[in-house]
Amino acid sequence: MLLPSKKRLQESYDQVCSHVHRTPVLTSSVLNEISSAKVYFKCENFQKMGAFKMRGAINAILQLNDEYRKKGVVTHSSGNFAQALSLAAKNLGVPAYIVMPSNAPTVKKEAVRSYGGLITESEPTLLARAAEATRVVEKTGATFLHPSNNTNVILGQGTAAIELLQDQTDLDFIFTPIGGGGLIAGTALATYYFGTSCKTIGGEPANMDDAYRSLKSGIIETNHGTQTIADGLRTNLGDINFPIIKELVEQIIRVEESEIVAAMRLIWERMKIVVEPSSAVPFAALLKEKEHFRNKKVGIIISGGNVDLSNLPFK
Amino acid sequence: MLLPSKKRLQESYDQVCSHVHRTPVLTSSVLNEISSAKVYFKCENFQKMGAFKMRGAINAILQLNDEYRKKGVVTHSSGNFAQALSLAAKNLGVPAYIVMPSNAPTVKKEAVRSYGGLITESEPTLLARAAEATRVVEKTGATFLHPSNNTNVILGQGTAAIELLQDQTDLDFIFTPIGGGGLIAGTALATYYFGTSCKTIGGEPANMDDAYRSLKSGIIETNHGTQTIADGLRTNLGDINFPIIKELVEQIIRVEESEIVAAMRLIWERMKIVVEPSSAVPFAALLKEKEHFRNKKVGIIISGGNVDLSNLPFK
Repeated sequence: MLLPSKKRLQESYDQVCSHVHRTPVLTSSVLNEISSAKVYFKCENFQKMGAFKMRGAINAILQLNDEYRKKGVVTHSSGNFAQALSLAAKNLGVPAYIVMPSNAPTVKKEAVRSYGGLITESEPTLLARAAEATRVVEKTGATFLHPSNNTNVILGQGTAAIELLQDQTDLDFIFTPIGGGGLIAGTALATYYFGTSCKTIGGEPANMDDAYRSLKSGIIETNHGTQTIADGLRTNLGDINFPIIKELVEQIIRVEESEIVAAMRLIWERMKIVVEPSSAVPFAALLKEKEHFRNKKVGIIISGGNVDLSNLPFK
Repeated sequence: MLLPSKKRLQESYDQVCSHVHRTPVLTSSVLNEISSAKVYFKCENFQKMGAFKMRGAINAILQLNDEYRKKGVVTHSSGNFAQALSLAAKNLGVPAYIVMPSNAPTVKKEAVRSYGGLITESEPTLLARAAEATRVVEKTGATFLHPSNNTNVILGQGTAAIELLQDQTDLDFIFTPIGGGGLIAGTALATYYFGTSCKTIGGEPANMDDAYRSLKSGIIETNHGTQTIADGLRTNLGDINFPIIKELVEQIIRVEESEIVAAMRLIWERMKIVVEPSSAVPFAALLKEKEHFRNKKVGIIISGGNVDLSNLPFK
């Protein structure tokens, strides 16, 4: 297959970096002890709107010419990408049309509106959302941007790993969560082009292990269940990101729900940072197979920090 | 009165800084908007053991000569200072005797033990704790260190504000919580000596407003109640820190419990950091009187991040 080139990834980075925060890389001696590794957390929970998705959204809009930008962008999402695209579009003076299921939580709709996103509601099925997005495209001429299965979105997400590798050049591994596949595909490209024998590992909820099974079978598998606390990871891979993942991702490690919550709690308690359940999945994966990574230098992309404080999993 | 000198504070800083983390100063455009000020959060929740108290504990031990260090240090505390003194002593190879009330939560005793502190239990009254501490001093020859009413502890706590003023030289105000008075006294000294027309402001729970009343009356007033979510602030001022506070603190602003929780929630949600209720008190104070501080540059000492995640106040 043909991977997106290093030059294209570098160009994305050069353009994206002035529009996003350079997030810090944090470490914790206690978590190093617990994991038997040297762990470098790239804290995208401190990113604008609270998640790495801002990077992909910015990059996808930046690649549009003025004529397309004027007409706007469309996506269907009820999660972080809806907010990211709204804010990225607002910052670049572009209209953003967000298709959300009618039963999406009010707090999520309000967040999109607060960033200037124009919401169109659809019936709460994937099919209805896609149909509504198509109608918006036809009506407005806006460009549809998929949250994870879009090359420019993937390249944008990869810029977090580029920064991580600038700050810590000698990483042996970079772990990310794997949901729709955009973050891990971008990270794998960045690691391949900018790392020094660094490999990319995915962490995935065992309850939602489509990516694990896809890597085994070589074709895109779908999820059967929808039950995981890692709500950002309840999505399937796509035909643009899967070939990159198949080519460049070393391994996918599956973790149980209790392991996700325990890893999340460790991060909150020991690092004093607020991270989403999805963000704790790669650290849970490291802890699960820690013998395999003993004394290695491991980067972890903390994907975001947007949680409902009224509904936390800690008992 | 005679204030501790600038030279002595500078010497404390020179000694302390290699034993503690240089914590980051974080900002948030959303919180700037909400408060109508430019706010610089000095994040001592990222300090070793999770609170600024590490600084005072380290400084107090460093000022002891070898003979005294060998005999160890004693304190009575069930909070952050017990943990801070245990860890500081461990890092400097000194025994730490911690007197804790017999009914202290197991998790707090375990935290002290995990840092190497040697616990002596006492009856759960202030008098019994003080008597037990005296017995330990007599038995071991160790030096008693009060958590807040000790000059070297005060100077150590002041080093956080020195760093904040190094990073942001043009602050108009520095806000801290006020409980036992050690942090605000040290901060006021640092602000006086190292700031440029910078003033120190205290935030205090209205339910526990001994410092507010003391500043009004000119003598040390005591607390009548014990009810505040800001559990680090349930203590009274002392005869060593109060004269410094009286001389150098500009104002104390009282805040209601609901204002503390709301400010805490804003910090968690918008900055994605875990902070204690006590840490939210100065930000709540700024929000309460925001007209008075409009467009000013305000430093805030985030005192710590040790919370029980199983028992959060968010509804």
